[in-house]
Amino acid sequence: MKRILILGGGGMVGQKLAKRLETQGLPGFGDFRVTLHDLGYGPDAVGDDKRVGDLSVLAEGAALAAERFDVIFYLASIVSGEAETNFDLGWQTNLTPLWAFLEALRAQHRASGGEYVPRVVFTSSIAVFGGPYPEKIGDEFLTSPQTSYGAQKAACELMIQDYSRKGFIDGMSLRLPTICVRPGKANLAASSFFSGIIREPLNGLEAVLPVEDTVRHWHASPRSAAGFLAHAAVLDSDRLEGRRALNLPGLSCTVAEQIEALRDVAGNNVVALIKPQRDEAVARIVSGWPRNFAPERALALGFQAEETFREIIDVYIEDDLVDRKL
Amino acid sequence: MKRILILGGGGMVGQKLAKRLETQGLPGFGDFRVTLHDLGYGPDAVGDDKRVGDLSVLAEGAALAAERFDVIFYLASIVSGEAETNFDLGWQTNLTPLWAFLEALRAQHRASGGEYVPRVVFTSSIAVFGGPYPEKIGDEFLTSPQTSYGAQKAACELMIQDYSRKGFIDGMSLRLPTICVRPGKANLAASSFFSGIIREPLNGLEAVLPVEDTVRHWHASPRSAAGFLAHAAVLDSDRLEGRRALNLPGLSCTVAEQIEALRDVAGNNVVALIKPQRDEAVARIVSGWPRNFAPERALALGFQAEETFREIIDVYIEDDLVDRKL
Repeated sequence: MKRILILGGGGMVGQKLAKRLETQGLPGFGDFRVTLHDLGYGPDAVGDDKRVGDLSVLAEGAALAAERFDVIFYLASIVSGEAETNFDLGWQTNLTPLWAFLEALRAQHRASGGEYVPRVVFTSSIAVFGGPYPEKIGDEFLTSPQTSYGAQKAACELMIQDYSRKGFIDGMSLRLPTICVRPGKANLAASSFFSGIIREPLNGLEAVLPVEDTVRHWHASPRSAAGFLAHAAVLDSDRLEGRRALNLPGLSCTVAEQIEALRDVAGNNVVALIKPQRDEAVARIVSGWPRNFAPERALALGFQAEETFREIIDVYIEDDLVDRKL
Repeated sequence: MKRILILGGGGMVGQKLAKRLETQGLPGFGDFRVTLHDLGYGPDAVGDDKRVGDLSVLAEGAALAAERFDVIFYLASIVSGEAETNFDLGWQTNLTPLWAFLEALRAQHRASGGEYVPRVVFTSSIAVFGGPYPEKIGDEFLTSPQTSYGAQKAACELMIQDYSRKGFIDGMSLRLPTICVRPGKANLAASSFFSGIIREPLNGLEAVLPVEDTVRHWHASPRSAAGFLAHAAVLDSDRLEGRRALNLPGLSCTVAEQIEALRDVAGNNVVALIKPQRDEAVARIVSGWPRNFAPERALALGFQAEETFREIIDVYIEDDLVDRKL
């Protein structure tokens, strides 16, 4: 039976992926068993084989590599805000362990006489880009990150591509849109409000909107994120033609359009729970983010996301809204 | 008196730079003293303070950082062919010491209470690009390297930019064209013949041409390379607007145009010393290289290169042809 490893499997996207693999499998892949690895797990976390450990202990990654998983999803990372505040922690958590893990996989490749070449799906981010931007970011736009997180993701992409080009792994990097609507509580990410202004009102709570409603951004649902990863696991990597970092599909909309979609779904009383309260720091960070993409390669490769923000809200309601008040 | 450090100062470009600094100084920079650092030096190497050492001994870089040079040229690197053949040596020589050195500079920045922010000029390469290419590569074209050397240079660029963005250093990365005509002997680089077909005939020697004469590539002279570095040392980095990797000016021409320029300078008998002898390996590598650029940002920032291949040959004759037979 084949084996799949999800590094960062306790996180939101890791859990969505684990659930998807459990319920839908992977097309054409056959039977498999999933192992999760993370610093810890929530009380409701899925997964029969949930390992607890720290990839920044490099021997931990090497031990996992020695199990020779067929497919490895590398989702482990600290978030952008933390990487920006703590420069050391960012580079040491977001680059060093990935590099060490790739070296460990290469050692397994070598020990196997070249037979072991795992599929590695790395979650990168649209944070690899930095402005000024064209109206839509195309597949050939430069990566000039303006955050440490983005620089770390871009450096990881270079390694994933080079180790793949050499045949040690068969990897690819998926530049995820901002995932929205994230279930659970608000976090300290500057992007947190994009989910908060939908999630909190739908749960009967107030939400702060820290930016103008003219702000435009690039979104996909958690369900789409899990779909991207599953699709990448079984994609014929020859079709990438050596360019192993992909801008993924998403939906470009303004905050005003998000709010109107919420009004359509839930009405004026729910929308009234959104409280505009400008936060200069958040507004400044968000003003440097990509607004729109033309992800032609990923679309041609069969990656799919939502086409309206209404769909994104519906996904949240179907998949994550616990106490439906609607 | 200010102090300048050239890491890789024993190499061809390092020596050209050292000579230029000695004879022309740096505009508006005032008096300075130059220190060179390399694994070794040729018998005719210039420089009053030539240190011998190995940057891959990380303490060596840290000790240099502790001297708090005002301007640091980081030219130390193994070449593309070697990085491709020896994967470990490539990453460990072309990325690890740069990262460790940046950390050491950051430690000095911190120890100085934030006052010490050295100018760091890093020599990157057009190898950060991978095909397919547009007719001319613009300043916003993606970096998707197809060699380990290119991946390593691109990863270094990301670090130079992030350490600069954070204010620890004031750095920039210069993506040098293929330097031609290199003085001295042929080396094992796949690009070596671009210089060889000019240099050897001018010295009365035969030269092998391993590719079709329709091959188009992007060149600048060693004199221009030294000029780029000197210009970068005193450039107002605010003008980079956060994008600290630059495609430099150069000259796009075919091998046939190179040969015709040589004929103009030196006549048919010299050109007859070029012996076409196809080398499939070299031809394949070269077919993946950039052919032409539109380096608008660098031109606007005042970087200058030759405009005809004839000029490039003239520079070789003026600067490096020892035994002028012409």
